[in-house]
Amino acid sequence: MEKKRVKVGLMGLGTVGSGVVRLIEGHQEDLVKQTGMAVEIAKILVRDLEKPRSVSVLPELLTNRPEDLLDDPEIDVIVEVIGGIEPARQYVLEAIRKGKHVVTANKDLLSIHGAELLSEAAGRGCDLYYEASVGGGIPILRALADSFSSDRITKMMGIVNGTTNYILTKMSQHGMAYEQALAEAQEKGFAEADPTADVEGLDAARKMAILGTLGFHMNLVFDDVRVRGITQVTREDMNYARQLGYTIKLLGIAQLDDDLVEISVEPTMIPSNHPLAAVNDEFNAIYVYGRAVGETMFYGPGAGELPTATAVVADLVTVVKNMKLGVNGRSIVAPYRPKRLKTDEQIEMKIFLRLIAEDKAGVLARMTQILARHDVSLERILQLPYDKDVSEIVVVTHTAPKKALDAVMGELEALEVIREIRSRYRVEGGF
Amino acid sequence: MEKKRVKVGLMGLGTVGSGVVRLIEGHQEDLVKQTGMAVEIAKILVRDLEKPRSVSVLPELLTNRPEDLLDDPEIDVIVEVIGGIEPARQYVLEAIRKGKHVVTANKDLLSIHGAELLSEAAGRGCDLYYEASVGGGIPILRALADSFSSDRITKMMGIVNGTTNYILTKMSQHGMAYEQALAEAQEKGFAEADPTADVEGLDAARKMAILGTLGFHMNLVFDDVRVRGITQVTREDMNYARQLGYTIKLLGIAQLDDDLVEISVEPTMIPSNHPLAAVNDEFNAIYVYGRAVGETMFYGPGAGELPTATAVVADLVTVVKNMKLGVNGRSIVAPYRPKRLKTDEQIEMKIFLRLIAEDKAGVLARMTQILARHDVSLERILQLPYDKDVSEIVVVTHTAPKKALDAVMGELEALEVIREIRSRYRVEGGF
Repeated sequence: MEKKRVKVGLMGLGTVGSGVVRLIEGHQEDLVKQTGMAVEIAKILVRDLEKPRSVSVLPELLTNRPEDLLDDPEIDVIVEVIGGIEPARQYVLEAIRKGKHVVTANKDLLSIHGAELLSEAAGRGCDLYYEASVGGGIPILRALADSFSSDRITKMMGIVNGTTNYILTKMSQHGMAYEQALAEAQEKGFAEADPTADVEGLDAARKMAILGTLGFHMNLVFDDVRVRGITQVTREDMNYARQLGYTIKLLGIAQLDDDLVEISVEPTMIPSNHPLAAVNDEFNAIYVYGRAVGETMFYGPGAGELPTATAVVADLVTVVKNMKLGVNGRSIVAPYRPKRLKTDEQIEMKIFLRLIAEDKAGVLARMTQILARHDVSLERILQLPYDKDVSEIVVVTHTAPKKALDAVMGELEALEVIREIRSRYRVEGGF
Repeated sequence: MEKKRVKVGLMGLGTVGSGVVRLIEGHQEDLVKQTGMAVEIAKILVRDLEKPRSVSVLPELLTNRPEDLLDDPEIDVIVEVIGGIEPARQYVLEAIRKGKHVVTANKDLLSIHGAELLSEAAGRGCDLYYEASVGGGIPILRALADSFSSDRITKMMGIVNGTTNYILTKMSQHGMAYEQALAEAQEKGFAEADPTADVEGLDAARKMAILGTLGFHMNLVFDDVRVRGITQVTREDMNYARQLGYTIKLLGIAQLDDDLVEISVEPTMIPSNHPLAAVNDEFNAIYVYGRAVGETMFYGPGAGELPTATAVVADLVTVVKNMKLGVNGRSIVAPYRPKRLKTDEQIEMKIFLRLIAEDKAGVLARMTQILARHDVSLERILQLPYDKDVSEIVVVTHTAPKKALDAVMGELEALEVIREIRSRYRVEGGF
């Protein structure tokens, strides 16, 4: 291959796109040294040609017509950082069908159409890399695909959303209420004006689907993830967690037992001395358990212009190296294990419950009877005075099937002496 | 390439070698799925044919003649886990010259002869991978080589020796004396009978040379690393560190400023809320700063049979994939930046000093005069009663050139009112 220059079509010039431009321009010399080729941004697809940009680009590079990139035979690689499903999906598919390699940061797309796009790419000898879609600058996908290839991954626990981790850190360390912490995150640019996708756990769920697929070799998609967000987390819960030696994090969990998988995102109590408990502010981290390697953790910035762009450009370097070697598309390993999701009987966990009950004799006895009937045993139980004639009861169970725990919840709610179940959290412990 | 089976010659059947046998046998199905080839251990070089082994292997696989592996044209890959410089160096070189690919866990070898071996391998189209030489099961070398290829790494801080981290954790968390913690580490198998290479920092220095070479693209070797071990660390120092909000870790630091490099291993005080401070017991972690990516950390088991074997087998999988693709040896990037080490004037740091002085008027004044004369300013200074007529003085400086700090130390030692300089630590802070 006598080619000396790789032409890139960049789709999107927002935060990540600007970072990609900056990195490619700033590191041209290193890129040439590492790949033997110059990397040139040949065209940039934007919605608004007139909009002022934080990075300076030649005006003639900008276009609002996707065909200027897709139909240009000189463009070898499409970098897609528009986000969202459509039209990104259409562009990526068309790029692959035209024989172009694709690097994308698009978690929405990958967590739903990943398998389809990867199989299309492999079939046409095109690369499709997406490191930036999970964990920003943390090279976790590469670690799963390459470094742990000889191991059997059995569990991944991730703090994979910076916005919610920022909010929970402020609540936990500064005693802020949820609304106050959210407002501060918005002010600092860590949360969007409409924070739904972050605070409801949807963004984290997309990332967990991508991690699960790669780690377990199963085609896990967004809809397979059981999701609960952080909007119900209270300062009181934070205080109880601390008193019990726990920290509340929005934790994605993907777990494999006997070829059965469980994948979820929910606010979870983890022991305060666990390395994940020390991951604060907008940082992300992914804890990976492998049968052979044991416990490893990958920590870093989960978002941001340059960190995310670093992952994009690292993928781009891999594409360029593959081009030079003539091996594009060949490292794609399709999910080869059948997807078998655990049922609620098969999912097991510990939970923390906090409830408000009437302060009458026999309340605890009736509660413990319900628990016993469903074979749920207790790790601890506290009863505290709450108000006149009312007490607060905090319970941490031992590990039990989710179905049994849900049944217990239902019966407790129906008990007339119980006024309210204030909160319920998954508890991950015993490391 | 119609080959369906890759034959591996394994050199060494100690801890790591046994793990490699176990992993290859246990994951044969996954290996075939990922690489399309079966991986077979065809011969194993051992010193003693009769020694009982923790893993069961066919007796006919064992040999004590290296030529049985090196001269066998059917063997495609040599996995070298003997350790030490000779004869490992000779074997690896001969394997490469015979066109065999090499996977090694040998940090001693790589930290001295790395550049020579890599250039030999690249020249012959052979792979030479060594992920297991640093950080056991942590895929840090791959991250540096691939994931941060578009970034400029400016600093790496690593806890890269499990033995010393275990000892320091016991001293810090359980108030043990150094000797007691060392004895416990030896009892638990975390330290060898002769612990010199670990406790004197030599093992960590080798790993830092390998990290520095890969991260900064300079040919850094063991001799370039300034080393100090942990044998002088005391419980008193641990207590002072804690009171000041620090934790003492044996930290490898490799730092690049304006193309000048500093590389060292020494017991260092880091802020207790730094993620590295939470890396306990025998775990390892490497903190990487990139200009674009910011701060990332890679955490995991730094040693052990299966974690280290995971890294070896992941390298082996890469070799097999490269064979299939016909691209062996092509991913080796030779160090392309000239090596320029900082002088003591150019190395800058903060230090912690603890000294015993006569309890006389004017002692502090004389000390501070010396500091001022060398332009070293203080972040804090404490004077505490120590014994009759004697006081203890604890000082933390601001950042200053190492040369100035050394000069200050020399003059303080010469002061007749100062009885003894008890301890000196580097301080890394201000994150």
